[in-house]
Amino acid sequence: MIVPVGEDAAAGDPHQELHDRLVEAGLLFSTPVQGLYGRSETYQGVVRAIDAMVHRWALELAATTIHVPPVIARSTFDATNYLQSFPDLMGSVHIFRGTDREHAELVRRVEAGGDWQALLEPGEVVLSSAACHALYPMIGGRLPAGGRVFEVSGLCFRHEPSTDPARMQSFGMHEVVFVGDPDGAQRHRDRGLEVALGLLGDLGLEAEPVPANDPFFGRLGTALATSQLEEELKLEAVTPIFAGRDRTAIVSGNCHRDHFAQPFGIESDTGEPAHSACVAFGVDRITIALFARHGLEPASWPDEVTAALFP
Amino acid sequence: MIVPVGEDAAAGDPHQELHDRLVEAGLLFSTPVQGLYGRSETYQGVVRAIDAMVHRWALELAATTIHVPPVIARSTFDATNYLQSFPDLMGSVHIFRGTDREHAELVRRVEAGGDWQALLEPGEVVLSSAACHALYPMIGGRLPAGGRVFEVSGLCFRHEPSTDPARMQSFGMHEVVFVGDPDGAQRHRDRGLEVALGLLGDLGLEAEPVPANDPFFGRLGTALATSQLEEELKLEAVTPIFAGRDRTAIVSGNCHRDHFAQPFGIESDTGEPAHSACVAFGVDRITIALFARHGLEPASWPDEVTAALFP
Repeated sequence: MIVPVGEDAAAGDPHQELHDRLVEAGLLFSTPVQGLYGRSETYQGVVRAIDAMVHRWALELAATTIHVPPVIARSTFDATNYLQSFPDLMGSVHIFRGTDREHAELVRRVEAGGDWQALLEPGEVVLSSAACHALYPMIGGRLPAGGRVFEVSGLCFRHEPSTDPARMQSFGMHEVVFVGDPDGAQRHRDRGLEVALGLLGDLGLEAEPVPANDPFFGRLGTALATSQLEEELKLEAVTPIFAGRDRTAIVSGNCHRDHFAQPFGIESDTGEPAHSACVAFGVDRITIALFARHGLEPASWPDEVTAALFP
Repeated sequence: MIVPVGEDAAAGDPHQELHDRLVEAGLLFSTPVQGLYGRSETYQGVVRAIDAMVHRWALELAATTIHVPPVIARSTFDATNYLQSFPDLMGSVHIFRGTDREHAELVRRVEAGGDWQALLEPGEVVLSSAACHALYPMIGGRLPAGGRVFEVSGLCFRHEPSTDPARMQSFGMHEVVFVGDPDGAQRHRDRGLEVALGLLGDLGLEAEPVPANDPFFGRLGTALATSQLEEELKLEAVTPIFAGRDRTAIVSGNCHRDHFAQPFGIESDTGEPAHSACVAFGVDRITIALFARHGLEPASWPDEVTAALFP
């Protein structure tokens, strides 16, 4: 059943329409929270295949592979200034360390609608918003000549409830990261994005690289976004998923300069502050794009797509 | 290299010793938080193989497969009384919805060490502490005769920092859940645990079922734990990982009675309140047990283990 998405959606909401089709087909399971889903085995099989595809590329680059958990150390979160730039997207994890008596008061306030969160305290972790954030404190010190390549994947969280199935609150991100000298970082981003466009093409997803900016918060954020755009630090590979709507970013290539390496004391082989760059695959977004483009049954996807995905 | 763990650990801490060996072998990557790790591709390959083994069993039971995210709806969390029973283990996710001006104040308080968490509010999600919690609000209504079987897997969080690598804060759980009539639930738990013991035996992990209780909090919790033990609602399959220490639970079989089905209005085919039961595989714990038992290199594990794990 191959139905181009949005064909009859001129009157309706194409996000809601695709959402409903994915749920009705049993590929996604709704939860009480918008943008939070269970995944079927068929859906997850596509996720695993995309992960394996990125892994094969990472192996060509002799990358070290790290599967990261969905939470990161609060110390890492604080060191990368995420709260300053993206406060509205974060998920801060709070815990309870009280006594029996304080617990009784906690339960009482939750039931009565009182200020129970005052009885919690910030925990040692926050939800991870990008897979590679966990990496930098693991590196430390001076890098070998030529830098190092890492493959980092995991589940990320961003607080942005949406009817758009390509904008999940909990979603997979698979990154190939270079850490080393500035030129090497720029080359990794540029060459890596070309490779990514090729892989997406193999999956029947035509995508185009466009300059982009992160969704920095507030007035100060507008200035940061403008500067990021002008310097082309962020490029996104965008593909059409919804008729009559903006194309959706499914891969991004990012030059971080020394933003992530500096707080963790990472140096290039010559002792300069290291630069980093990543090519980040939005694994759930690519999965959603595949279902939207090729239909809801992988068994009936075009042979060349199946061959690329399940070699 | 097959070294029975803890052999020389009489003087040291066997938890720390295995932790250090796993990190030095590059199987786990330390983070700034105790009990929170990155995983290598080799480690994750074992995780995937255990997941696939459980999946094959679930298919025999005609289970519906759901991969659940690491966070669940706060409404689900509240409905299952987790805060009442396990406040010390939870991770409550808090978010920021303020203005530019409130954001400036938030950043000021974080930097100055003020009460910044008062500027956050509880978000729509909490960290999931058991994979099957996400399932119950997805079912709803009346079940068919004979009940239904679900396979639910995902990453869970429990706030219990530890040097024991088998006690991670973020860890995989893979459950096979029955929802239906009381007798069916009891049979699923009992028969499922036998199957699980067989699968563990195939992996060279001798395990024994022992009555157990959940780690209920505080004074009231002691009574709950005693009652759970007496009624044998929870059995754990325990295996030796650390010489001279208690055996470690790597699978549990749980009769929930109507604890989870009742709040979500789930009924058996005859209109009675449904019962549920689960057999829960601690995927990371089984992985750690395999490395501890058979050595740090899967390529040199016994042939029969490899055959069971990578058929």
